[in-house]
Amino acid sequence: MTSLPPTLVVGCGLIGTSVALALREHGIDVHLRDRDPEHVAAAVERGAGSAEPVHDPALVVVAVPPRATAAAVREALETYPAAVVTDVASVKGSVARDVAGGAGLDRYVGSHPMAGSERSGPLAASARLFEGRPWVITPAAGATDAAVRLVEEVAVMLGAVPTVMDADTHDRAVALVSHVPQVLSTLTAARLVDAPPAHLALAGQGLRDVTRVAGSDPALWRDIITTNAEEIGAVLTAVRDDLDTLIDALRDRDVVGGVLEAGRVGTRAIPGKHGGEPVELVVVNVQVPDTPGALSRLFAHVGESGVNIEDLRIDHELGRPVGLVEIAVAADRADELVARLTERAWSAYR
Amino acid sequence: MTSLPPTLVVGCGLIGTSVALALREHGIDVHLRDRDPEHVAAAVERGAGSAEPVHDPALVVVAVPPRATAAAVREALETYPAAVVTDVASVKGSVARDVAGGAGLDRYVGSHPMAGSERSGPLAASARLFEGRPWVITPAAGATDAAVRLVEEVAVMLGAVPTVMDADTHDRAVALVSHVPQVLSTLTAARLVDAPPAHLALAGQGLRDVTRVAGSDPALWRDIITTNAEEIGAVLTAVRDDLDTLIDALRDRDVVGGVLEAGRVGTRAIPGKHGGEPVELVVVNVQVPDTPGALSRLFAHVGESGVNIEDLRIDHELGRPVGLVEIAVAADRADELVARLTERAWSAYR
Repeated sequence: MTSLPPTLVVGCGLIGTSVALALREHGIDVHLRDRDPEHVAAAVERGAGSAEPVHDPALVVVAVPPRATAAAVREALETYPAAVVTDVASVKGSVARDVAGGAGLDRYVGSHPMAGSERSGPLAASARLFEGRPWVITPAAGATDAAVRLVEEVAVMLGAVPTVMDADTHDRAVALVSHVPQVLSTLTAARLVDAPPAHLALAGQGLRDVTRVAGSDPALWRDIITTNAEEIGAVLTAVRDDLDTLIDALRDRDVVGGVLEAGRVGTRAIPGKHGGEPVELVVVNVQVPDTPGALSRLFAHVGESGVNIEDLRIDHELGRPVGLVEIAVAADRADELVARLTERAWSAYR
Repeated sequence: MTSLPPTLVVGCGLIGTSVALALREHGIDVHLRDRDPEHVAAAVERGAGSAEPVHDPALVVVAVPPRATAAAVREALETYPAAVVTDVASVKGSVARDVAGGAGLDRYVGSHPMAGSERSGPLAASARLFEGRPWVITPAAGATDAAVRLVEEVAVMLGAVPTVMDADTHDRAVALVSHVPQVLSTLTAARLVDAPPAHLALAGQGLRDVTRVAGSDPALWRDIITTNAEEIGAVLTAVRDDLDTLIDALRDRDVVGGVLEAGRVGTRAIPGKHGGEPVELVVVNVQVPDTPGALSRLFAHVGESGVNIEDLRIDHELGRPVGLVEIAVAADRADELVARLTERAWSAYR
């Protein structure tokens, strides 16, 4: 793969520049293009590649905003008749439909690296951005095996985990696991706009978790939602049916209990860490002073115990300079961890 | 306060036993009662107090399920004519209405310690449970100052942060910041029940955050929701209006953008750590092998840098034994932290 001939990255935003940086680390000759010359200059400055034109790229990565993607893919297929062309748009069906009927489609392989950041632009880019992330590849029926294989190899080279599915399946899946959760997080947060501060002062970690993604870039999400409207609409309509049922029966213990139980079952359907089966975890709570160094002492003691941390969070607390750290560990190791931390003078409990 | 005369705790579940354990640590004579003799025995075994009857308690803490609270408060006020009586139910207006008109109401002070656990029962109890948590106190108009002061002192003694508001305001506030987020988390998770595994394999941290609280005990939440139905219904109706607007205009960039912007503004209304103003944070991402000890090395190096961790999470990744740790720090310290961690051979980026 280090002999991969020149690659052209079209679009020097967060994703495009990150792809370019990662390819450069593998010694690949990367050329950069963007409508905005300042973006290209910033990406070049970061070492992401060259601003010189390229004559015969083996691969073109289209990393422009979703609404501009299909036109850029078509242009790349026409301009570079030997190149495999991929794009990174987060909605795939509309791109596939908009490029259909054009020339060179056997060389087009849509993809979606599921990575991002709360920041955008070339300065936020990182060669590490794709490590461990799913990278969905959505080849149309006409794509050659060689083209699909090349895009898979690039995903693996960048540390991602490639997964092949068709474009409509991808859009249905991300509507369910990403776009609709974004919408419901947003609707929860929107209710807080006019809330009195005394009400908001009672906010706990649950509210912060539910609304975290609602803090994301509205412009990016506006494009995603309007582009995947059909699949999102289908799921949201089902949510509205559940919501109607609940609003009409908020005093009915059977109805409310049934909805809550369905939600609990749903959480258990989410795969566990590293894509494996969900493991039974128990949370060990530890009080930690809110000062530099305290967490490093805590984790040194956790490390000594030999108990692996499966997940953790710091709970934000009201009105005192102490944090509650919640350490999730395998259920059969929790008592041992509490005992070891207590020996070390931590206030710990499960 | 260590001279506080005997206290009776009615209900030896998670909250009651935790209150009892914490009072015992302050040398207070605690008596325990529960309909279930096994719960009392377990709480006594844990050192939470005595199962012997008490004749003249100064304080009665009613910690029974929400639906049984009002009757238990009335009984306590009648049985112990010198005692201050408080309860810990998480919905306050219905309790206040159900006890109204009874005897001894000048000695009744409702309260709500905002603490919990994913576990329940006396074995899950901890004297530390209330540390740093809000403890809302909702005195009715007729309550004496001395009674209110006693409940506030107990909250402070247990490490909580007392906040006084009227019962209906409390219920409106928790509907907004706790109950409605729970419902929307549940409705998001309920859509996953029949999802194909290949779709769920694309789940990221966003979905996990939005649906985390949906994994909570359905029986407890059924009681909370049915008891606070009116306030929850008002907020959910507003959510449904927003949802209807969105479903009808999912391809309209202005409508979708407006909803997303309202959500982002809402997230900024949530108070920051320790109840202060929100601080601008930046996330530094660090790759960490998923082995015991790796996190302790990382936090030792973060500690050396002198940069304080404001929040952190471990991102669950698909298919590889490495974790992505997201460390939120003050925006003006992020570059420094990246530089220091990179010196120490961590793969870190913002």
